[in-house]
Amino acid sequence: MATGTLPSVVSRYKVPIITLFLSVYIDIFDCQQFVIPFKSPSDCSGEEFFDISSLSCVSCGSNQLRSTTGLSCICKTGYQTLITDKTFITCQQCPTDKPAVITDGFGCVRCPGSLSDEGKCQCPPGNILVERDTNGNLLDEARCEICNGNTPGLTVPNYSGDKCERCQDSFINSSCVCNPPNVLAGGLCFPSGSLSTNVNPSVNYAQLKFSVQSAWFVKNLYSSSAACLVFSNLTACQALGNMCVMNMHSFSSVSTDACGLFNTIFRSRAALSSTQDISYWRVNLPWLYYGDEPGLAGRVLQTDPVPIKFSFRGRNKNTDIRLLAAVYNVRGEFLRWEQVGAGNLQLCPGTTSKQSAAFSFGTAYQESVTDLLDAHPEPLFYDVFLDLGGGENRKLLPLPTLVYNQQYNGRLINQESMKNWYLSRRMFVVDTLSGREKSTSSLPKVIRVVSSVKIRFQLVPRTQDGQVFPPLMTVTYRDVPITDINTQTVTTTFAVEYEMDQNEARIKTDTAIGVMAGVALIYSLLKTVSWKRRIASPLIDAETLLKFLIFYAGDLANVFFAVTVGTGLYWLIFYKAQQFVSVLLPLPAQEEQFVTYVGCAFALKAVQFLHKLFMQVSIDVFFIDWERPRCKANRTVQAAGEPKRDPSPVSIWRTYFVANEWNEIQTIRKISPTFQIMAVLFFLEVLGFSNLALRDPWPILQRSSQEYTPSYSIMLRYGLSSTLWLCIGFLQVIFFTVFHEHFIEDKIRQFVDLCSISNISVLLLSHRCFGYYIHGRSVHGHADTNMEEMNKNLNRESESLCGQRGLLPNSDTQTFQVSLTNRLRLQYDRIREQIGRRNGPSRLMDTSSANQFEQRARGYQTMNHFLGSVIDHAHPDMDYIVRDKLMFERVIGMEFLEPSEKSIFYNDEAHTFSDVLFYGNEATLLIFDTLFFCVVDLGSQSFVLSAVLTCVQQIIFRLIRNTLGRKNLVNKTLVDERFLI
Amino acid sequence: MATGTLPSVVSRYKVPIITLFLSVYIDIFDCQQFVIPFKSPSDCSGEEFFDISSLSCVSCGSNQLRSTTGLSCICKTGYQTLITDKTFITCQQCPTDKPAVITDGFGCVRCPGSLSDEGKCQCPPGNILVERDTNGNLLDEARCEICNGNTPGLTVPNYSGDKCERCQDSFINSSCVCNPPNVLAGGLCFPSGSLSTNVNPSVNYAQLKFSVQSAWFVKNLYSSSAACLVFSNLTACQALGNMCVMNMHSFSSVSTDACGLFNTIFRSRAALSSTQDISYWRVNLPWLYYGDEPGLAGRVLQTDPVPIKFSFRGRNKNTDIRLLAAVYNVRGEFLRWEQVGAGNLQLCPGTTSKQSAAFSFGTAYQESVTDLLDAHPEPLFYDVFLDLGGGENRKLLPLPTLVYNQQYNGRLINQESMKNWYLSRRMFVVDTLSGREKSTSSLPKVIRVVSSVKIRFQLVPRTQDGQVFPPLMTVTYRDVPITDINTQTVTTTFAVEYEMDQNEARIKTDTAIGVMAGVALIYSLLKTVSWKRRIASPLIDAETLLKFLIFYAGDLANVFFAVTVGTGLYWLIFYKAQQFVSVLLPLPAQEEQFVTYVGCAFALKAVQFLHKLFMQVSIDVFFIDWERPRCKANRTVQAAGEPKRDPSPVSIWRTYFVANEWNEIQTIRKISPTFQIMAVLFFLEVLGFSNLALRDPWPILQRSSQEYTPSYSIMLRYGLSSTLWLCIGFLQVIFFTVFHEHFIEDKIRQFVDLCSISNISVLLLSHRCFGYYIHGRSVHGHADTNMEEMNKNLNRESESLCGQRGLLPNSDTQTFQVSLTNRLRLQYDRIREQIGRRNGPSRLMDTSSANQFEQRARGYQTMNHFLGSVIDHAHPDMDYIVRDKLMFERVIGMEFLEPSEKSIFYNDEAHTFSDVLFYGNEATLLIFDTLFFCVVDLGSQSFVLSAVLTCVQQIIFRLIRNTLGRKNLVNKTLVDERFLI
Repeated sequence: MATGTLPSVVSRYKVPIITLFLSVYIDIFDCQQFVIPFKSPSDCSGEEFFDISSLSCVSCGSNQLRSTTGLSCICKTGYQTLITDKTFITCQQCPTDKPAVITDGFGCVRCPGSLSDEGKCQCPPGNILVERDTNGNLLDEARCEICNGNTPGLTVPNYSGDKCERCQDSFINSSCVCNPPNVLAGGLCFPSGSLSTNVNPSVNYAQLKFSVQSAWFVKNLYSSSAACLVFSNLTACQALGNMCVMNMHSFSSVSTDACGLFNTIFRSRAALSSTQDISYWRVNLPWLYYGDEPGLAGRVLQTDPVPIKFSFRGRNKNTDIRLLAAVYNVRGEFLRWEQVGAGNLQLCPGTTSKQSAAFSFGTAYQESVTDLLDAHPEPLFYDVFLDLGGGENRKLLPLPTLVYNQQYNGRLINQESMKNWYLSRRMFVVDTLSGREKSTSSLPKVIRVVSSVKIRFQLVPRTQDGQVFPPLMTVTYRDVPITDINTQTVTTTFAVEYEMDQNEARIKTDTAIGVMAGVALIYSLLKTVSWKRRIASPLIDAETLLKFLIFYAGDLANVFFAVTVGTGLYWLIFYKAQQFVSVLLPLPAQEEQFVTYVGCAFALKAVQFLHKLFMQVSIDVFFIDWERPRCKANRTVQAAGEPKRDPSPVSIWRTYFVANEWNEIQTIRKISPTFQIMAVLFFLEVLGFSNLALRDPWPILQRSSQEYTPSYSIMLRYGLSSTLWLCIGFLQVIFFTVFHEHFIEDKIRQFVDLCSISNISVLLLSHRCFGYYIHGRSVHGHADTNMEEMNKNLNRESESLCGQRGLLPNSDTQTFQVSLTNRLRLQYDRIREQIGRRNGPSRLMDTSSANQFEQRARGYQTMNHFLGSVIDHAHPDMDYIVRDKLMFERVIGMEFLEPSEKSIFYNDEAHTFSDVLFYGNEATLLIFDTLFFCVVDLGSQSFVLSAVLTCVQQIIFRLIRNTLGRKNLVNKTLVDERFLI
Repeated sequence: MATGTLPSVVSRYKVPIITLFLSVYIDIFDCQQFVIPFKSPSDCSGEEFFDISSLSCVSCGSNQLRSTTGLSCICKTGYQTLITDKTFITCQQCPTDKPAVITDGFGCVRCPGSLSDEGKCQCPPGNILVERDTNGNLLDEARCEICNGNTPGLTVPNYSGDKCERCQDSFINSSCVCNPPNVLAGGLCFPSGSLSTNVNPSVNYAQLKFSVQSAWFVKNLYSSSAACLVFSNLTACQALGNMCVMNMHSFSSVSTDACGLFNTIFRSRAALSSTQDISYWRVNLPWLYYGDEPGLAGRVLQTDPVPIKFSFRGRNKNTDIRLLAAVYNVRGEFLRWEQVGAGNLQLCPGTTSKQSAAFSFGTAYQESVTDLLDAHPEPLFYDVFLDLGGGENRKLLPLPTLVYNQQYNGRLINQESMKNWYLSRRMFVVDTLSGREKSTSSLPKVIRVVSSVKIRFQLVPRTQDGQVFPPLMTVTYRDVPITDINTQTVTTTFAVEYEMDQNEARIKTDTAIGVMAGVALIYSLLKTVSWKRRIASPLIDAETLLKFLIFYAGDLANVFFAVTVGTGLYWLIFYKAQQFVSVLLPLPAQEEQFVTYVGCAFALKAVQFLHKLFMQVSIDVFFIDWERPRCKANRTVQAAGEPKRDPSPVSIWRTYFVANEWNEIQTIRKISPTFQIMAVLFFLEVLGFSNLALRDPWPILQRSSQEYTPSYSIMLRYGLSSTLWLCIGFLQVIFFTVFHEHFIEDKIRQFVDLCSISNISVLLLSHRCFGYYIHGRSVHGHADTNMEEMNKNLNRESESLCGQRGLLPNSDTQTFQVSLTNRLRLQYDRIREQIGRRNGPSRLMDTSSANQFEQRARGYQTMNHFLGSVIDHAHPDMDYIVRDKLMFERVIGMEFLEPSEKSIFYNDEAHTFSDVLFYGNEATLLIFDTLFFCVVDLGSQSFVLSAVLTCVQQIIFRLIRNTLGRKNLVNKTLVDERFLI
């Protein structure tokens, strides 16, 4: 024993002096551990046998050799066996006068002729060896007797050569000899001229570009064909058919290979009636081919539905697809009827529930496993039928098979279009036999394995009862050249596919998109017109076109979104909830168009979103402070240009406060984005809604990991996640607008209130001549006061002791949409120019910046004064009127009246000024988020990743909106950035 | 054909007039669809055969019957077969003078005796039937010849009764007859007296409480025993052993059942040397038992390690457990050596990669599948060895087996403690044979199935090289009475477990907790003392005790948290990254203590968290406004009690602004909670870190769904998620405190700046006499001014043209920790009383509320004035000093100086006032979140659910903190709630 196998505790003390101790230790250790050496029967030498009790090799006795099994001993050549104590044998040399050992070994005998190598007597062919007389007494000298092959006897020696028995039927004419011109083949004797002996026994491996003289074909092809043709031997016909199947049904019209011979016989039977009324199935022959008329495949596959109905639930629930196969072995013997599914057509093992899942209607099944196969010494052949049921009168429907590799006159016709297909029947799974070249027991050069079995069910168009056309079984074989049998692996796929004609659905989708895109076009035009009006520009220029395109992008995105969500939801509902099978999911390849639509929706929505974002961060905003200084005397001082010494200036803090709050409501939304994502994740991943997107018809949320899990459908995933996202978003919007804002907190209303309390109005101009006005004039005249008075004012208002807050007397309306006249806007722009920051370089000169700011502040005050006086109707030429907006104007988002003389203030109770915030664009944001989530999911097939990225996306855009919005606010209102926290 | 199977297209037009058309249609339809009726060979009648070509039943010719296979026809009794055209047979009645048909059927013969039922000749026993002469010519009259059983011949008729052959060795004494007193059994002849024929062939089904006279035992038990004992027949000995194994090794010392007989023979062999130097393994006998000495099991299993080392990676990577089994059939024949794993000991199918995963070291494997078993006509027997490798000198270690159901003198000793265990060898998987009562081909009454095979590897304690003790295989059998063979299922489990002695780890954990809990105790005591000092109360009362307990809860939570995270991380690192196997995961049952610790940590942390939350929402806060009215003349007016008409009061808006901002920073944190959750989810679920928590030693993130997936380890999950959570949290804290706050935005510093700009100081009292002070006195004297001046002031400050902001002259320090004297606090409380809201009922009287508020506002101004004057050192008896805090004071969070005479203001550059916000308690919050996440995950095993719930938890607590914090702020500062938006 090598010291390397010592336990480490010992090997740490490896010093020479204890080596002896160590070796002792090893013995004890071995003894206690009961370690035994490994021996197998083949490890024993020629004079040892393998003792099955001790699992070791034990020597045989003298003059003995091991037997062929290696598990016992036998006597050497020339020695007879003696039993001494009935436990062991002993061997004794035969006497010289009886040199041969008899067949059972227990005696010696004289021979009539020569001795064989094993020391037994040998007789000439046709003779039998007789060692004992009829009563079993051993003869002194063995006899060779000839078997009488002629009429009274008609016998030949049996297999062991010790008895004469009747010869095979085909020989019996007058004697047991197959005399020329008769032909002897495969142990049978054929009359001459029945079939040309010039047959082609090679198997062509087209994929590997070589062919093999197959030992099996050499041995059996001619005899099977002849026996089938001449004797109508049933098993011979099947065996011939099997050889044709092993050739993958390939044949040319001139060749004499297996399929050629089969077709020759097939044609010769044309006169006889066909089997089972099927013209392609001749008497005594297997059914291998459908006809070769062009277009037959289409007629077989798409003319008549199968007379059974599939239904997913209810009283007539029927989803089981029962396939039966008639199984034949390679010699053509019928073995049994077998239910397909228990692992016969599926090469690879899997748990039973997973394997049988493949046969439940509507579940796509696909599993690839690599495995080395040499547990199939002989191929089995399957004729597959669909079991139609029917109790006593059970009916079967033969499954048309499409052998993908089948050649017809050298063309791979089954890889061409359907009208050229040549359907067939019968398949095998593994063929390790035809590739054996020398003998049928040698190692095969090539094995042929089914690399893919696909059973495709096609739903009858517009069926309401779950009817299908005859299913097609597509079989693809692969030739695997044997190089290293121990490490090679093969991959096989077994799949059941369910499809329906998707053209109708596609046309419907396209129609919907077309119609809705038209409507969207009109709507976008309207928007563009409205926009032109709001910017008070009559010209149609490039910008107008761009705007139109952007509006159209948004509307088109909605169209795509609506259609894709509708489609996804349609499949989700109709596929998962149907009783009779009426729709089947599109195959993954058919989902491409859908993915394109989703991509379009997302891209267009992104354009719209970015445009809105850009518009929002560039609006014009101004805070009008109504507060007037308290110490009236100072007014004159200010007018004298010494504002610095003004002892009581109007405090800017209220403006800061309002600006700060305005800054804070930039990115509030009608939903909580975090909660939204978490809720979606919760439904999808925790409650298991994601299982609804699996490609099977069961609306079940919890799946066992033991079960077979089909793949996901992209459409169902999209339909599911978008619907879920929209629903949760919608519920949140309802919760926030109905419950939260009424009973807890309404940030928008709070802001309007704050304006009123702080005596500050807000003018927002989203377009050149259009915007929003929040009237915030305090009803108390002053707001810049101490806590006590503030509180009194608030109390007075809550007790309705003072006027109302509205712009018009006795009205409450504080928020307006405003359409400005061009004149007002021009004046506004003139003053705005003073406030606007100067260009970059001047800002670098620090010394002038203070001075500059003074100018801007003066501009700010001018603006404040100007706008205040406009609101107060102090400028007759820039007056305005207040009116209600028409219902229709609201709906199409466009004003009919053009503000030519007077500006128009539209009452706006709905706070539409939130349109310049995230708050008023919840629909766009929600759809954008939904599409973002779905697009990431389509790409990654992971809801968690989608959730994470959506969250990151929301954070980033919120940050951008906040930062840019704040910058804009600083620019437009002169409020220092430090107060916008 | 029933009309119910019609396609629906047709059945919609079901009117009587087209019934005829319909039936025609059906025919066409059937023809086109190629529907065939289902027939199997057993469906054919006695005079039909099953045509394997057409798969239908076809009538036989006249005088013919179907053969036994049903696939061809044979002639009736008394008819000989004639070949006419070599395709079909014809039958001809035998002539009356030759009434018997010969054996091969092709001729008729006269009989010497009677005819059998099949119409063949019959000979008496011991005779052979001769129909042909030696040359194969048919005799006119068959002959019966007797076989010579005595010395020259020693023959008996062969199986088919047509030839004499040598009789069996055991008979050969002088003749082939077993004459009494010799005993004939099982085809062998035993000398009398060798073994008592009184054997017990019943199999006892103890679980079902009945026993069965087993046909197999009846037939073979005596003969096997006798052949083993008398002839030392190897296969007979094995067969006897197998019968003992089928009895689950159960035996009593008096019985003569299989195991009793085996032990009798075993004892009789004591004199002979044992096999392979193993004393429990006698020559020619199988090794079934280890000795029955008490305690032997422990010595075998836990004394010496197996001389191979397991290593997970590196040059000596060795994780393969190769188990070899010597396989015997029920007759005792040795079949082969078999690698265990390819589905021999595992009854249930599974993909190959999943099945072999069970044999990779360190992977727990468990899968249960129900399956009906009648594909095992005979049991196979396995002697399982562990392959130790070693190239040429390959060694095997026999696996000790513990048969759970084994009975020893009626006791189930193997279900007792280890010292009573009786180890054995050899097992079977399914035994459907011993339960057959009438004959060995009848339906079994009971089958015995292995319901659980568990191979347990135990790691040698403190090994560094991955050494294990000899693995123990525990086998449990189950008796399944056969009731309905088609619907019954059995469940089996195959598991490989790896365990190590966890006591040491547990002791270490407990020690760590003990020591750290002690330290925590001291720390908590310190905290309590500090708290007592800060509330300036010397008494030790119930409240003190409660506080101490709460502090201790927090510290103990940290201890538990540290230990559990450490343990989890230890396992994660050492188990997943070890090269030589030195640690193995605790089994699920051993993880209970760990779960308890985590639970403790969470519960205690929750107490601490809630306490902090409560303390934070009840702190005292006051905003000191330094602004004085501008129109100084008015001051006198105010003093005269007419504040209402004050023309220029100090505006409250700055206070509102500061209060609003203070309200907003209540719940900001040093991390982004949403990002935290999303990042953790991303790592765990998207990048696949969760796979690290699987119970196998591979640190691989991506797993194929094809592979076997072991279960999750609770410890690894905890270690992984807590570490990940902490790491991401820590990185976020670093990012936010180092990068974000320096370069982007620091809300805390912004607030301090805002105080300074707005001329408002903040006094926060977290304890009665301890708190924080933010000095916000404007360096410009006034802050209540217009935008122009604000801007100028800001510019001047940025150009350092004015004084510094600090409390002390020429200092910048604006934030302080304050220790107040008792006197100051009393005065403070007196004024505070005025401000504090009155109790509920008085608030209901609306009329008085305005008046009441006036009082409170006056109190507010008094407080403002009082605190301002204190800060201005205007009260000599309530003066204060400013000093730095000692390093040690900072560390233990306690002040050494007691503020007896003067209050003490400690400089606090670190903004520790954030301790009263979420911001300053990030550690507590992070640990609480971590524990919350982990505890939910331990309960639900779902990271997504944990993330969702953690998010909801954060939202809820943030809402609570915000709402209560705002309420507190309203109460304490009189700022109207409407301004805290």
